[in-house]
Parts: sequence; structure tokens; C-alpha cells
Amino acid sequence: MTPKKELRIGLIGTGLMGRTHSNGYKRIGDFFPELEYRPVLKAVCSRNEENLRKFADQWGYESVETDWRAIIARDDIDAVDICTPNDTHAEIAIAAAEAGKMILCEKPLARTLAEAQRMVEAVDKAGVQNTVWYNYRRVPAVTLAKQIIDSGKLGKIFHYRANFLQDWTINADLPQGGAALWRLDADAAGSGVTGDLLAHCIDTAMWLNGGITDVSAMTETFVKERVHQLTGKVQKVSIDDACIFHCHFENGSLGLFEATRYARGHKALYTLEINGENASIRWDLHDMNRLEYFDYADESIVRGWRSILVTDSDQPYMKRWWIPGTSIGYEHTFVHQVADFLKSLETGEPCAPTFQDALQTQKVCEAVLESAASKSWKDTGAKGI
Amino acid sequence: MTPKKELRIGLIGTGLMGRTHSNGYKRIGDFFPELEYRPVLKAVCSRNEENLRKFADQWGYESVETDWRAIIARDDIDAVDICTPNDTHAEIAIAAAEAGKMILCEKPLARTLAEAQRMVEAVDKAGVQNTVWYNYRRVPAVTLAKQIIDSGKLGKIFHYRANFLQDWTINADLPQGGAALWRLDADAAGSGVTGDLLAHCIDTAMWLNGGITDVSAMTETFVKERVHQLTGKVQKVSIDDACIFHCHFENGSLGLFEATRYARGHKALYTLEINGENASIRWDLHDMNRLEYFDYADESIVRGWRSILVTDSDQPYMKRWWIPGTSIGYEHTFVHQVADFLKSLETGEPCAPTFQDALQTQKVCEAVLESAASKSWKDTGAKGI
Amino acid sequence: MTPKKELRIGLIGTGLMGRTHSNGYKRIGDFFPELEYRPVLKAVCSRNEENLRKFADQWGYESVETDWRAIIARDDIDAVDICTPNDTHAEIAIAAAEAGKMILCEKPLARTLAEAQRMVEAVDKAGVQNTVWYNYRRVPAVTLAKQIIDSGKLGKIFHYRANFLQDWTINADLPQGGAALWRLDADAAGSGVTGDLLAHCIDTAMWLNGGITDVSAMTETFVKERVHQLTGKVQKVSIDDACIFHCHFENGSLGLFEATRYARGHKALYTLEINGENASIRWDLHDMNRLEYFDYADESIVRGWRSILVTDSDQPYMKRWWIPGTSIGYEHTFVHQVADFLKSLETGEPCAPTFQDALQTQKVCEAVLESAASKSWKDTGAKGI
Amino acid sequence: MTPKKELRIGLIGTGLMGRTHSNGYKRIGDFFPELEYRPVLKAVCSRNEENLRKFADQWGYESVETDWRAIIARDDIDAVDICTPNDTHAEIAIAAAEAGKMILCEKPLARTLAEAQRMVEAVDKAGVQNTVWYNYRRVPAVTLAKQIIDSGKLGKIFHYRANFLQDWTINADLPQGGAALWRLDADAAGSGVTGDLLAHCIDTAMWLNGGITDVSAMTETFVKERVHQLTGKVQKVSIDDACIFHCHFENGSLGLFEATRYARGHKALYTLEINGENASIRWDLHDMNRLEYFDYADESIVRGWRSILVTDSDQPYMKRWWIPGTSIGYEHTFVHQVADFLKSLETGEPCAPTFQDALQTQKVCEAVLESAASKSWKDTGAKGI
Repeated sequence: MTPKKELRIGLIGTGLMGRTHSNGYKRIGDFFPELEYRPVLKAVCSRNEENLRKFADQWGYESVETDWRAIIARDDIDAVDICTPNDTHAEIAIAAAEAGKMILCEKPLARTLAEAQRMVEAVDKAGVQNTVWYNYRRVPAVTLAKQIIDSGKLGKIFHYRANFLQDWTINADLPQGGAALWRLDADAAGSGVTGDLLAHCIDTAMWLNGGITDVSAMTETFVKERVHQLTGKVQKVSIDDACIFHCHFENGSLGLFEATRYARGHKALYTLEINGENASIRWDLHDMNRLEYFDYADESIVRGWRSILVTDSDQPYMKRWWIPGTSIGYEHTFVHQVADFLKSLETGEPCAPTFQDALQTQKVCEAVLESAASKSWKDTGAKGI
Repeated sequence: MTPKKELRIGLIGTGLMGRTHSNGYKRIGDFFPELEYRPVLKAVCSRNEENLRKFADQWGYESVETDWRAIIARDDIDAVDICTPNDTHAEIAIAAAEAGKMILCEKPLARTLAEAQRMVEAVDKAGVQNTVWYNYRRVPAVTLAKQIIDSGKLGKIFHYRANFLQDWTINADLPQGGAALWRLDADAAGSGVTGDLLAHCIDTAMWLNGGITDVSAMTETFVKERVHQLTGKVQKVSIDDACIFHCHFENGSLGLFEATRYARGHKALYTLEINGENASIRWDLHDMNRLEYFDYADESIVRGWRSILVTDSDQPYMKRWWIPGTSIGYEHTFVHQVADFLKSLETGEPCAPTFQDALQTQKVCEAVLESAASKSWKDTGAKGI
Repeated sequence: MTPKKELRIGLIGTGLMGRTHSNGYKRIGDFFPELEYRPVLKAVCSRNEENLRKFADQWGYESVETDWRAIIARDDIDAVDICTPNDTHAEIAIAAAEAGKMILCEKPLARTLAEAQRMVEAVDKAGVQNTVWYNYRRVPAVTLAKQIIDSGKLGKIFHYRANFLQDWTINADLPQGGAALWRLDADAAGSGVTGDLLAHCIDTAMWLNGGITDVSAMTETFVKERVHQLTGKVQKVSIDDACIFHCHFENGSLGLFEATRYARGHKALYTLEINGENASIRWDLHDMNRLEYFDYADESIVRGWRSILVTDSDQPYMKRWWIPGTSIGYEHTFVHQVADFLKSLETGEPCAPTFQDALQTQKVCEAVLESAASKSWKDTGAKGI
Repeated sequence: MTPKKELRIGLIGTGLMGRTHSNGYKRIGDFFPELEYRPVLKAVCSRNEENLRKFADQWGYESVETDWRAIIARDDIDAVDICTPNDTHAEIAIAAAEAGKMILCEKPLARTLAEAQRMVEAVDKAGVQNTVWYNYRRVPAVTLAKQIIDSGKLGKIFHYRANFLQDWTINADLPQGGAALWRLDADAAGSGVTGDLLAHCIDTAMWLNGGITDVSAMTETFVKERVHQLTGKVQKVSIDDACIFHCHFENGSLGLFEATRYARGHKALYTLEINGENASIRWDLHDMNRLEYFDYADESIVRGWRSILVTDSDQPYMKRWWIPGTSIGYEHTFVHQVADFLKSLETGEPCAPTFQDALQTQKVCEAVLESAASKSWKDTGAKGI
């Protein structure tokens, strides 16, 4: 067997995304054995030294760092994986690019469009491989949706709708800020559900249905004040708890998006639907191995929505896993993204979504927040990705 | 407009089935206006005089009788509709046939095979039009299933399964016998779930998939004693609370049937499924306007169970009702049966299921009960219907 | 039995709604026998004389008229039922009110807010009983939703969302205008999906969740020109094929609404969902006898959305019909509205939704259309109903 | 950090189960870091040398063997994992026990009851830790079902039903025998769907609902002859393609089981349902992260089946994985079994299902096959597990 080329990873951040990414790297060899590159867990970085050691031991990182600059400074690291809160993405990514490192950045790319643009400039200037972890593209059922759409089966598109509904912040006693709850702190997160949840919906939407040209949005902050974990004081909540917008796509179809953390009964209900002249598609993260498909070409009396169990070897990614009828889960989307990133190193192609792609999503997010603030329609300037 | 011919009805029994049948007759003119015959509610009969008057007033019967023999004796009645408990079916039906009346008999045809055979002989000898109210055949989705199967789309059949699950007799304090609870009294009902629920499943099964040749069954009576409403005493319960059987069909497929009144959480869950070489079909009474259909001929990556909403005008019976997407309910199955019976008077064809058809179902029921009692396989002698 | 008081009906319009209303009147006696009033089908009116006769014969109307003014002029008619296209509602209703007739008007109340206001003034001045056929309130599952919400189980409300998706006008060869397709002609209909479909969603929403204060909307006309059936010429299509809006409710919750006739695969998919602090509710017209309910008070490890089959006698309207587990359909909503209207004659209470209630819905519709046209937020001025 | 104790694994068999088990061992460190033992992939064994090398490289086994006896003979192996076809289980397991190795044996334990009994005697005599990979017990939703049942919430049990439906052998051109298709060869597999699929259903059933005392079964071989891959000749097919049985449980409830490979449209549809006096539970492998639960104690008007998304940290095994609302898949059941096996080494408790437990399942399987062959009821002699 030819020895594999190494992709030496420096992971920054040891939260939930640090775990999903680490798992992604570690499983590649078992399920994608033909790839030329293999990830090596060279170093992991966090400011909390105790947790850091534990994390490194558990996941098998060769070394630890407590300052991300040290990761970037190391010669034995090829790629920097950014899993830290959003307020650090730009600084780390730009420094990494300047140091010639490849970058795998957790979504959203940045807190603001301005930050995102500087990040894109940095990777463009440095010419380093880059990708953003919008992982839901690589749910096999969603990838299959992309294949069906690209095949032209849907015809002219009329509607696209998506929502991402959660209920975990309803309790007004939940604090904001700090290691676990930075997503409720606008300084750290940039925004609330717009960057956290809608960004996912927008990335998938523009990948499946092209660019979003203009938006009209509404946001709401249901709990106005929360204790801040860092200060211990009751402070104003600045994030959006909920965000709804409608929009136009370049192809003339209408879009409708909603995200919230106040939809009692829904844990992570990301659903999407696209309606074309000839066919329609639906998907639901809570039943992620299924795709629903309606084909008007079916004989009239037996026409109906098909519930496709996406577990067969001729469906995207599924030949890697088990047998028809047996499902995979959330974590596999990250494995798929690692595999595709490694493959991109062989082919020299970009690994979508790139920073440039994620910038388009950032443009829509920014327009959405501006639209909500100004109570007016906003052009996005985004291109399809 | 040509004046309609009259079908003068004498209804015997004013319980639930008295209501569903009366409703069936009354709605014909509004939804099947082209039929040559129109039902006329000539007389209704019950032993409880007070309820009888109320029923007659409410539903618009022209007259009342307290003895069913009076109904049969009347010259102004063309058809006798038997809605009384099972222990009276044979006597009434035979007398009605001898009097030359058409007969519409509620299911099951009789308590026993012997009774049923005498009834068939009587209608055959008299040459009177006859039908049995196995209403679920005329759920549009079930009728559509029949069309699909007859079209040959399924290929060779491997499996047929059906169940009918209820939970209304779990409470051990529920009495048996009397007007409301005769279904728990074996003397009145003949059997428990076998005649009440499985008979429906068997009728549909043999209509869709041909004759059942031999059976192996198990029955259970979970509550062994209940107060009898007529005697006021605690008496042994003789009905089957639950019945399960497997069987062979003439076409070589395997059958599996279950009925119970002890399945907590299910009100009237009649489901059926048929698996063929090339396609499969499922149906569920709790979502009765849908049919599920799987076609192996569909392109592999987009193959899945189709959820067909059976509400379009090209689907069975539905052009009579409203618009696509709007549903009908339980009662419409009885309206459809009345319509088909009236149509049969025009054409001179039998209106299935006839007494002869119901006799086949009775043979299977009898074999099932004998199999359970003897703990052995039993041949049914039944033919497809 | 005390003779019933008569409510002598004059029905104007013999289309789909003429049928649903007639069916509503005719079934009252069989299922609501205790009511003091009984509807009498005194006269039916349509300009198409041939169809009119056929309709009158089929449904049993005592007489016919070809001019609606004749209906209003008759002394033997107590209530006028308006089932004609929207462009005639105002004129007929105002004349009927002036003649002292009760009015049952098909929805939407009118083409425009101005028309609707004049209609409200007319019935107020005349003091006649009035109601508008927003029938979906009287789906038992929706009425149950209302009961649950009124009980306070949901706590503070965060979100309300509804959509009404159809696909019947995708074919660009479908003409507009004339008897069958007036819903595609803005002159006759006033608007497209806003008045036809969203009006239903808005009526239910404001009944369940209170007033909608301000809206931001988008509309689209996908097929720009169609042959007009009356002129035979290709003409501009002026209706909205699709309409999406978000809004605020008086209670601080966010609303999201969408209607379209271009959602391939959906016949009449009216769904609604409401998310409260403590509980949530969902409903879907395509499975109309079910209500989904999530209660956060349930024990954590067994907490989940409940699928409630609304067929028991302790659930709204269901004691009128059959037995647990057996469903009713679309048409029963109209029967329920007739029953409630007749009851209102006994009690002297209004029968909601009244013209005044429907006026509030009209205000929202008008604000929605203005918002879409001006691309800006609009206040509705509507009150909860 | 204390160095971990090693559990040195020798894996025999490199097919699908070789992969699922290997994956189970490799992920333990990342998700169950607190365990005292860690699996070491010491050696893997297969007769096909080329595939063996590839497998060992891919999964990281330290060494390879082509004779299973060599695995057993090695001093550096603590536990033997048997993933070979059923005809080798007994010989390998008995030899391994005699050599003092722990044993993890793929299900079914053996081809026949006689083989299974000898295996149990061997491990009992040797006193070695042993377990059988009936993995579906460790689907979190199924484990949760066990918790709910053990809590007594269901009350007296009336019914248990399960089926396992597949469709992968409908094609009559599929050969039997050989490496890939030994499941169709009775010599290698012992039986068809009974040992392959029903054994899973029976293991879960007796774990959840206690012992099965007597059975009445039916089997069928739809395709009578297939080419045998080893001989190249058309040979009689001796396995059961389908098997259906009903039975009694010790607790008085009725059981109903079905398995087939001829249910067109179903890939691996393992469903189970249990109905108690007070509550019922359902589960479906095709939507494996959900459990359905009906509780009669809920308030009547809002009572319904709950759809529980089993992804929260207070639900079995789920605190190991990701966040609420995100799912895990088929492979995780094997990880859970490895974790529980390692934990059993700490506690000294057995790791269920043990060989003794699996023997009870074997007794039921044998009785089922005998019942089908003799067309009579058979006592099983099995005890609850």
C-alpha cells in the first residue's frame, strides 16, 4: 500500500463543533480508504487548559496549545480548523491564511459582512484551500435533492421554503454569554438565529436554487434581558430570537424562511421544500434519511408524494456505510465534508462551500438583518453558489 | 324529468347501523341524481317504542312497526334492511326472502356458518336481490386498491396482512349483553372480534386477493366474566376478545390477520397491506382518504412509498363529492353501497358482496374459530369473492 | 313533538358552494334534531336556467328564480344565502339587509375593504342576523384547538404560522374568467389567493390568536397572461397567484402566512401551527380529523408531539356523528355552521364569524395587498375576532 | 490519566458484521472515555488473504490470521469476536471457551438448538465472559421502551407484535451460497428469515415482555430453486423465505411475529408494538430515533400517540452523542454494545444478552421451525431474558 500523504490538522476550539470535526477526521480511514490524504490530529487549542488536556487525550491529539497563534506558527500543521465562537473567526482565519495554512472554518463565516469580506480577501491573496462547515449539504438526502434538481426534473421553480425551529432558549432564566451560551451574546455571535440557523437554510437554498436577490425580514427578541455569564449582571439581549423573511431568487421563484429558538416542541427542525412546475421535493432533519418527492409525471390515479428512504448504495455517500434500510446520523455529514475536502486536495478543485460561497450567504444574512432593522426591502448583492 | 322508480325500504333496527344505512338512503338523490331508483323510507322497526318514534321522526320514516314480521308482511315494502343484532339475521332474512323481499343485511351475515348457509339457500330459492354491508370495500382508497391490483401492477403476490385494533372493552367493569353491548354476548353476536372485526378484514382480503384456503388461529378472552345486562348477574364471557390467524390464499400468498379490542391507543385501526413482486399497497382506516403505493418500476434513486390522497375526480366515487384535497368520511362508504345497490337494480347484476360472497367470509370465520378451539390448521372451503 | 320553526332559505348561486351549503341545510334534521328551527329550501337562484332546474330538482328546492332580486323580494324567504362570485356579494347583501333578510354570505365577505364596510353598515342598520362561511373554524380538530388555547394551556404565544398550498393553476393554458374560472379573474374575485385562501387562514388565525396589527407582504403572478373565457382574448392576469406575508399579532407573537396555487403536489394543504411557552398545536386539512399537540409539562423522557384522533364524543361536534375512530369530512364543516346558525336564532347571540368579524379579515387582506404593492409594512387596523 | 486496561480483540470474519463490530471498538475511546478498558484491535482473521490485508489496513488491525484456530491459540488475545457465517459459530465458540477466551458472538447464536446448547455449556464450564450481538436492544428508543415497561406504566400486557420485512431476495436470479449469499443457504445459515430476522424480534420481545411459552408457525419458500454459488448448479432452496407465528407469553399476552424477504418496498422494516392496559408503545427501525407512546392517563380530549424524538441527554445513551434533535444511526447500536461489554468487565456482571439468553431465543426459533414443519403448536421451553 502506498503510504498516504498527511494532512496535519490544528484544531482551535473544543466545544460541540470541535467534537464533530474531530470525529469527522478520525473516521475517514475506515470509510474512505481510497483517499490519498489522511488527516493527522497534530494539535488542539483552547484557553481552558484542563478541558484541553482531557479533550486531547480523549480524541487523540498529539499536542495542545493554549494560544491559537501558536497553532498558526507551527510548521507541522497544514490546515487550521476554526471551531471557536464567531467573534474570533476573522482574526484567526486571516492570520492562518497569511501563514499559508489551509482553513476549515465553522459556520457562519463571520459575525458581519465586513469581516467575511476581509476573510475572503485573505484566502484569495494567500491562495490557500478553504471551506466552511455548512454540513447539511452533505446529508445524503439533501445531496440527492441537489442531484434531482440538477437533472431538471422539477422544471421552472415557483417556491422555496425552509425553516429551522428550536425551543431551547424559552426559559428566561437561561443566562447569556460565556463558554456555553455565547450564541445568546451578540458580541460573540454577531447575531442570533440569523447567523446560527438561517445561515444553514440560506446556504442550502442558494446551492439548490440559486442566488437570493432581495429580502424583506422581521426579527424579534422575546426575552429582552438575561444575566450575562461573564459580568454576572442582567444585561440587554441583543440577538434576534426569531427571524422571518421572504425573498426573491434570481430564477424568479419566491422564498420563505423562518428560524426561531421559541418554537415549543421542536428540537432542531430544519425542513426545506422546493416546488417546481413538474415536481417537488421536501426534507426534514428530524427524519434525515428520507427525502419526499412528488412527480407530476406519475400516472394520475397513483400519483402521490414518495417517501424515499435514502440508504441505498446508489444514493449519495451511502455505499460507504451499511446496508439498505439502515440509517446514518448527524455526525456523518461532517465525515462527508472531511472526505470531500481531502478529495479536493487530490483534484485541486475548491471544496464547496468555500469562503467565497459563504460570503454570499453572509450577504443575505446582512441584508436580512438590515431589512428587519429598517422595516424595508433590501437587495443582497448575493450570487448563486 | 322522468319520475324515479321507488325502492321502498323497511329498516329493522335503530342502532348505529340503522343510522348509517338511513343516512345512506337519504343522501342518494343529492349525489347520485342519475340513478333510476330512489329509496323511500317507508317503515322502521324496533321493539323499543319510544326510541322508535324518535328515530322515525328524526330520519323521516313514514311509519313504524314494533314487530319485524309486520315489516315483512307489508305490501308497500320492496326491500328489508336488517340492522339488528346477529342472532336475528337468519330468521328475518329467511322470512323476508320467502316473502319475496330484497334484502340488505348488516354484516356479519350470521352467527354461524349453518345459519349463513340457510340464508343463502333462502335468497337463492326466492331469487331476490341481496347484499351484505361490508362497507369498507367502498372506501375510495380501498376501491382504488382493487383497481390497481386488477390492473396487474403488483405481479405475483407474496403477502397479505390486515389488522383491526380497538381498545373499547379493556375496562373490566363494562357489562355484556343488552341493547348497547350485545357485541360482548356470544349468544347475540355469535363471536367476538372474529365476526365483528375480522369478518371485515376477510371480506376485503378475499375480494382483493382471492380465496383463503386454510387457517391456523388463536383466540383469547382477557376478561373472563362480566355482569350481564339482561340478567344482572356476573356471567362467563364467551366471546373472543382477540383473534389472530395466519393462512394461505389460493394464489400461494401468505396471510396474516389480527383483531382485538384490547390494543390500547387504537380506536378503529383497520389497516391492510399487500406485497407483490412488482408493487405493494397499504391502507389505514384512521387516514382513510389515503392509499400508500410502492412501485418497484420507479427509477431507483427516487423510489419510495407514494402517499396518494384519494380525492380526485378520476379516483373511485370521488367525482360525486367535492374538490381535490377535500376528504370524505366513514359514512360515505354506506352511501356508495346504496348507490351501487340501486344501480344493480337497473342492470340486473348482483350487488357484491352478496349473501353468497358473505358465506365465503363466514366459512373462513368458522374455520378460524374451530382452528383456535382445536389448536390445529383448518381448511376453509371458501372461494374467492 | 313540537312543530319546528322554519328558516326559509333562498340560495343564490349553484356552484360548489351552492352544493356544500345545500348539503348543510339538508342534513341538520338527521344530526341536530333538538334544534328549534329547521331549514326549508324555499328557492334557489341562478342565471343559467337549465342548470338551475337541474340543481333545484337534485337538491329539492321548492322553486327557482333567475334574478337574485326576486329572491330578496319574496315574502316567503327568511334568509338569503350568497354563493355567487365575489363581485356580487356587496350588492346582494346590502339589498337583502335592506329587505330585512338574514344573510349567510360565502367568504371572502367582499372584493375590497370598502365593499365590506358598506355591507357591515347595512346589516348593522338593518339589525339582521348574519354570518360568513369561514367553514374551517368548524373542523372539530380546529374547534378543539380553540378550546385548548382558551384553556390557557399554551401560555405566552410566540409564533403562529399557516399556509394554504394548491397546485391547480400551474397549467398556463387554463383560461381565466367565466362561470368556472372566475377565481382567476380579478374583476370577479377581487384578488387571487389572498381573498380565496389566505382569508381562511387569517380568519382562523385571528379567532385563535387575536388581532393582526401590521403586515409585510409579497405577491407574485407567475402566469402573466391567460385567455379570458368571456372575451376569448388573451388578457393580462391581475390576480395574485401566490402571496406571502409576515406580521405581528396584538399579543406580541409573530405570524407567517403563505398561499399559492403553484405548489406542485399539494391539493388543498391548509396547515396551521401555534407555539406557546408551554405547549404547541399543529393541524393539517389533508388529515383533518387529527390535531397534533405538544405539552412541555409531560415527563421529559416520554415527551413528544401527540397525534390526537379527534373522533370521540367528548370532542367538538363529534357526538353528533358515528363512533370513535371513524372520520368525518370536508362537508361536515358546513353542517356544523348551519347548526350553529340555527342555534343562534334560538339564543339571539351572533353567529361567528359575523360580517363584523369578516370585516377584520378583510382589513388584513387589504393591508396585505397594499403592502405587497408598495413594498412596505402596513398597519391593518384589525381587531381580534 | 491512569493507563487503561486493554481488551485485546481477535476478530474472525470480515463481512458486514466485521465492519460494524470494528467500528464499535474504534469509537469507544472518543465517546465513552471513562471506561477502564479500551479495545485493542490485535488481529483479524479471514480465509480470503487479499481481502484480509485490505480489511486489516483499513481498520487498523495489528496482525492477520487466515485460520481462526490461530486466533484462539494466541496469548495476546483476550476476546474472540465471531462474525463468520452461522455454521462456524459453535465450533469456534467452543474452542475459544476452552482456550479461556471471552467471546462476543454475532447472532443468531447457532444454526440449531443443539449447537447452541453445546456453546452455552462450553462458556459456562470455562466461566468466560460472553455476549451475543443482538444489537437492536441498544437503539436508544428501544432501551427507552424497556425503561418505560419496567417502570410499570403499561399495566397488564395484552399484546406484543413485531415484524421484520425486507425485499432483497425477490429476484429469482439471485444465487444462493458463497461468501456474500450464505444467508440463502440453509447449510451455512441454519434457517432463513427465522434465524436472520425473527431471532432479533424474539430477543427484543423476550427482553421487553418475558418468555414465550408456545408457538404456532407457518413458513414458506417462494423461490424453490436457485443456482448455488459454490457448485454452480441449480439446487433446491432449503431456507424459509418467510415465517409467521403467533404465540403466548408467560405473562398471558398474545404475540404475533412475521419476517420475510419478499415484502416489496421494505428494506429493513423492523417494527414492534406492545399494548398494555394503561399504555402502549411502538417503534420502527426505519425511523429509529423515535418512540411512539400512548398513555391512557392523559386528559381525554388531548390524548394521542406521542412521537418522542429520542435525542435528549436524559434518554438512554444520548448524552454520549450530540445535541437534542440530532440523530444517530444503525452503527451506534454496536458502539453501545461494546461500551456495555467493557463496563461489564469492570463490574463483573454479565453483558446481556449472554449465550444463556440467546439460547432462549434459539429455543423459540427451533420451536417455530418445528411448528411450521409439523403444522402444530409447539412448546418452547424458553425462559424470559
